[in-house]
Amino acid sequence: MIRTGIILMLAIITAFGAIAQTDGPMPMKPEMTEIWDPEVPVVTPGATPLDAPSDAIVLFDGIDLENEWTNADGGKPEWKVEDGCATVVKGSGVIKTKRVFDDFQLHIEWRAPAEVVGKSQGRGNSGVFLQERYEVQVLDNYNNRTYRNGQAGSVYKQHAPLVNACKEPGTWQTYDIIYTAPRFNDDGTYFTPPVVTVLHNGVLVQNNVTLRGPTEYIGIPEYSVEEHGPGSIILQDHGNPVSYRNIWIREL
Amino acid sequence: MIRTGIILMLAIITAFGAIAQTDGPMPMKPEMTEIWDPEVPVVTPGATPLDAPSDAIVLFDGIDLENEWTNADGGKPEWKVEDGCATVVKGSGVIKTKRVFDDFQLHIEWRAPAEVVGKSQGRGNSGVFLQERYEVQVLDNYNNRTYRNGQAGSVYKQHAPLVNACKEPGTWQTYDIIYTAPRFNDDGTYFTPPVVTVLHNGVLVQNNVTLRGPTEYIGIPEYSVEEHGPGSIILQDHGNPVSYRNIWIREL
Amino acid sequence: MIRTGIILMLAIITAFGAIAQTDGPMPMKPEMTEIWDPEVPVVTPGATPLDAPSDAIVLFDGIDLENEWTNADGGKPEWKVEDGCATVVKGSGVIKTKRVFDDFQLHIEWRAPAEVVGKSQGRGNSGVFLQERYEVQVLDNYNNRTYRNGQAGSVYKQHAPLVNACKEPGTWQTYDIIYTAPRFNDDGTYFTPPVVTVLHNGVLVQNNVTLRGPTEYIGIPEYSVEEHGPGSIILQDHGNPVSYRNIWIREL
Amino acid sequence: MIRTGIILMLAIITAFGAIAQTDGPMPMKPEMTEIWDPEVPVVTPGATPLDAPSDAIVLFDGIDLENEWTNADGGKPEWKVEDGCATVVKGSGVIKTKRVFDDFQLHIEWRAPAEVVGKSQGRGNSGVFLQERYEVQVLDNYNNRTYRNGQAGSVYKQHAPLVNACKEPGTWQTYDIIYTAPRFNDDGTYFTPPVVTVLHNGVLVQNNVTLRGPTEYIGIPEYSVEEHGPGSIILQDHGNPVSYRNIWIREL
Repeated sequence: MIRTGIILMLAIITAFGAIAQTDGPMPMKPEMTEIWDPEVPVVTPGATPLDAPSDAIVLFDGIDLENEWTNADGGKPEWKVEDGCATVVKGSGVIKTKRVFDDFQLHIEWRAPAEVVGKSQGRGNSGVFLQERYEVQVLDNYNNRTYRNGQAGSVYKQHAPLVNACKEPGTWQTYDIIYTAPRFNDDGTYFTPPVVTVLHNGVLVQNNVTLRGPTEYIGIPEYSVEEHGPGSIILQDHGNPVSYRNIWIREL
Repeated sequence: MIRTGIILMLAIITAFGAIAQTDGPMPMKPEMTEIWDPEVPVVTPGATPLDAPSDAIVLFDGIDLENEWTNADGGKPEWKVEDGCATVVKGSGVIKTKRVFDDFQLHIEWRAPAEVVGKSQGRGNSGVFLQERYEVQVLDNYNNRTYRNGQAGSVYKQHAPLVNACKEPGTWQTYDIIYTAPRFNDDGTYFTPPVVTVLHNGVLVQNNVTLRGPTEYIGIPEYSVEEHGPGSIILQDHGNPVSYRNIWIREL
Repeated sequence: MIRTGIILMLAIITAFGAIAQTDGPMPMKPEMTEIWDPEVPVVTPGATPLDAPSDAIVLFDGIDLENEWTNADGGKPEWKVEDGCATVVKGSGVIKTKRVFDDFQLHIEWRAPAEVVGKSQGRGNSGVFLQERYEVQVLDNYNNRTYRNGQAGSVYKQHAPLVNACKEPGTWQTYDIIYTAPRFNDDGTYFTPPVVTVLHNGVLVQNNVTLRGPTEYIGIPEYSVEEHGPGSIILQDHGNPVSYRNIWIREL
Repeated sequence: MIRTGIILMLAIITAFGAIAQTDGPMPMKPEMTEIWDPEVPVVTPGATPLDAPSDAIVLFDGIDLENEWTNADGGKPEWKVEDGCATVVKGSGVIKTKRVFDDFQLHIEWRAPAEVVGKSQGRGNSGVFLQERYEVQVLDNYNNRTYRNGQAGSVYKQHAPLVNACKEPGTWQTYDIIYTAPRFNDDGTYFTPPVVTVLHNGVLVQNNVTLRGPTEYIGIPEYSVEEHGPGSIILQDHGNPVSYRNIWIREL
C-alpha cells in the first residue's frame, strides 16, 4: 500500500512536471471549474414572457391603481381606470409608485390613443421615468416623425432608439426595461452612471446605454447630476390620453 | 436700425456677461438638444414580442432546417424536424447556421423532453453557442440541481444565471439573447470582450455580463482567447432529445 | 427701451426658429458649456513627479517605518531601516499600513538586491498588495525569465505587464499605481471589480485592467471574491532582501 | 504494473469525487495558473520616469522640430526653437506631428510664460490635441481662476481636472497622458469612446475618463462624433508664448 502510494505521487509529480513550461499551463480537471454553492434561487416564470414571474411586484393589474400609486403630491391618483387599463387624465399630473427601486427589470404595456391628434411631440406623448428622473419616452411615432432623440424608445434627449418599433395607435405595445441605478462618488458625481436596456415590442431599442444625467428638456444632463437613492417609477401626464396596463417589476 | 442693432448686441453681451459666473452655465433653449438627423429606421415588430420583427432573419420556422443550417461538416443537418420543431438526434452532432454573425439579438425557443431521464448535467442538456464558441447552457433544471455555473441560462462555467427560471420539462421555454461580439487587439487578445444579456422565459438571467473567453469544459477561458471574426449560431447535441423552434435573429 | 426689448426678443426667436430643423440642432453659445462651480481644489505638486504632492500621505520617508506601518500582527515592523530605505528581513513577515484606503494613487520605489541570487520567482521577489489582497508583483526580472503573469509589473496571475521595464538589480525602480476599489452587490459579488493602472519606471505596464478577484497563488480568483471595505497597503516578505523607499499615497 | 495503474486511477477518481460537491470546486495546482508564453517584450526605461524609454518615439528633443512636426498646412513649423524648447509664435498657428497615432502613452513638458499677462483663458493658454481633435488643456492656472472644465489638465469642456496641480508660471510642468482611441460602429458612432488618463506634474488629474466626442468650443461634443482613423498630436497656438520640451510617445 505504501509503495503504491509513492508510485502514485511520483506519477502525479512526473505528469505535472513534464507539462509545466510547454505550450500552456498544467492541465486541469472539469470539476475544478464547477461551482455548486450557493444554489441559484428558483423563480416561476409567467405563462408567457409578458406575464409576471413569481418574484415580481405587480404594480398595476388593470383594476387597482391606488394600491401601488399616488399622484405627484402623495394623494390619490386621478387617472381613469377602465377596461383593464389606466389612462392619463389631462391635467391630473403624473402618477408615481409608492415603492422606490434601485436596479430592476420592468415590464410595462402602453397604448397611444386610436384617434390620431397632433404631430411630432404632440401625439400620444407620455413617459416612463426611472428613479423619478430618467425618462424612457412614450410617444406615438407610427408615421409621425419627431427629433430622433425624443421618439418612442428613446432615453429622452440622450439616446435615440436603435430602430422605430412602434405599432399603430390604438394597439398595445410593450416595454421591457433593464435598469441599473447609478452609484455615486462622495462629491455627488456618478461613480457609475445609470445604464439601461430597452426592448420595444420585443425589439431591442436601447442596448445597455449609459445615461449622462437626469432627463432635461432644456440643457445638458451632466450639469444636473446629484446624488440620489432609490426612486419611484413615474408615468407622465403630457396631456394625451395614453393608457397603461400589465405593469410589473423585479428588483435586481 | 443701426442703433437698434448696436443696442441689441450690447443687450446680448450684457445678458451673457451677467450670467457667466453665477450658479450654472448660461441657459439654453430646448431646440439646442433636439437631433433630427438621421431618421431612425422603421421596423415592424411581430404580433407579440416572441414573433419575428420585419428586420429579423428567420433561422428556423418549424418546417425547413436545411435552408439555414448544416451539420458540423457543412452537410445536411440530421436532426428530426417534426410537429413544427427540430429535435436533437443523439450522435448526429451539432447543427450550425450557414450565416455568420457579429452583434445580434437572438430569439430561440427550446423544450426539454417531457420524460425525465438522468440528473444534473445528464437531463435535457443542449446549448446555444454564440459565434461558435460562447455557450448559453440549455438544460432541464426544473427540480434538478447541478453546479450553478452550468445550469440553464448560465454562460457555461463563466456566469451562473441570476435566477433559475426553468419551466417543467415538456414545456416550451424562451431565450432572448442580446450579444455584443468582442473586438480584438493586434496581438489577438480582447480589446473589448464579448458581452451578453439573456432573458429566460422573460426573466432576466444574465445582465450584460462580460465573457472571459471561449467556453471551456476543462480549464480557464482566458487562456484560449484568440482572434475571430463573425461566427455561426451552433446548437449542441449533448445526447438528449431537446427540441427547438421559432428561431430568429436581428443583426445589430 | 421697451420697443428695443421687443425687437431684441423677436430677433432671437427668429434666429432660433429658422435653424431648428436643419442639419443640426440650434446653435449654442460658448458660455453655455462653461462650468465654474465648484472650484477645483488646489494641490501643490512635488518638485519632480516622483516627489509627494501637498495632499499626499507620506507612508515612508526613509527614516521612520513605525509611524505608519506594523507587522502582520499589528506589532512593530521588523524590517531593517537603513540608508534611507526599508529592507525585507527574511522571515519577519509582511509590513502593512496602519491606515486603510479605498481608491488611491500610490507612488513607491523598490530595489532588488544587487547580488543576483536565484532565478524565476526566486530572485528579488516581493510584492505590493492593494487593499491587502490584490498584488502588484515586485520581482527582479532583469534577464530573468518567469511566467508572464507573474513577473514584475504583473497583477499576479491575472494580468501580465504590457512590457518588461525592469532596471538592473541594485537600481531603484518606481511604481506609480492608480487603483479603483471594487464596489459590491448585496450578495458579496463585485458590482464593479477593482481596476488598476501601473507605470513601472514611467512606462505603462497595466492600462486600467480589471481584476477578477483577490490574488491567488493556487486556483481561480473569481472563486474567492467576498465583500471588503478599505484596506491596508501590504509589502510582502518573500524571503529576498528587497528594499523600499519614498512611498506616498493620495486618496482619490 | 497494470494493477498499480488501476489503483492510481481509482485513487484519483476517489480523491476528486470526494471533493466535488463540498465548499468549493476541486483544488488546483499552482502551475495551472502560470502562463509562460509569449514572452513579455523587454523595454529599457529611461534614467528617470521623465526620460524616454527605449521603445518611445522622441517627437521633440529640444533641438529639431522640423523632423517630426509641420504647421497646419504641412509646411515648416514656425514656432521658435531656442534654449532646448519650442515656443508658440503668436499667429503662426498650430504644429502637428507628421506621424499619426492610435492608442499611446505621451510624455510632454510645457511652461507658461514667466511674465503673467491676462487672466482666465487669456493666460498661458495652449493645448495638446490627441488624434487632432481631443484637447487636454494647457493653461496657466496658478492663482488664475477660470471655468473648471476649461482649466489646466481638463479635457476641455468635458472633464474638469480632479485637482489643480499647476506650478508657477515660468516653471516646467509635465503631462503624462495615456490615451485609448475610439473604435467605431458602422454608422460612424462610437462603439467604444476615447478614454484618457492624465497625470499633471505626477498628480492624477484625469482617471480613465470617457470622452463624449471631439472637443467643442461651442456646443455639445456628442453631436459632432464622426469616424476617424489614427491622428496627429497637435499643439495649439492660442496666442500666448507657451513653451514645450521633452516630448516622447509610445504606441500601445
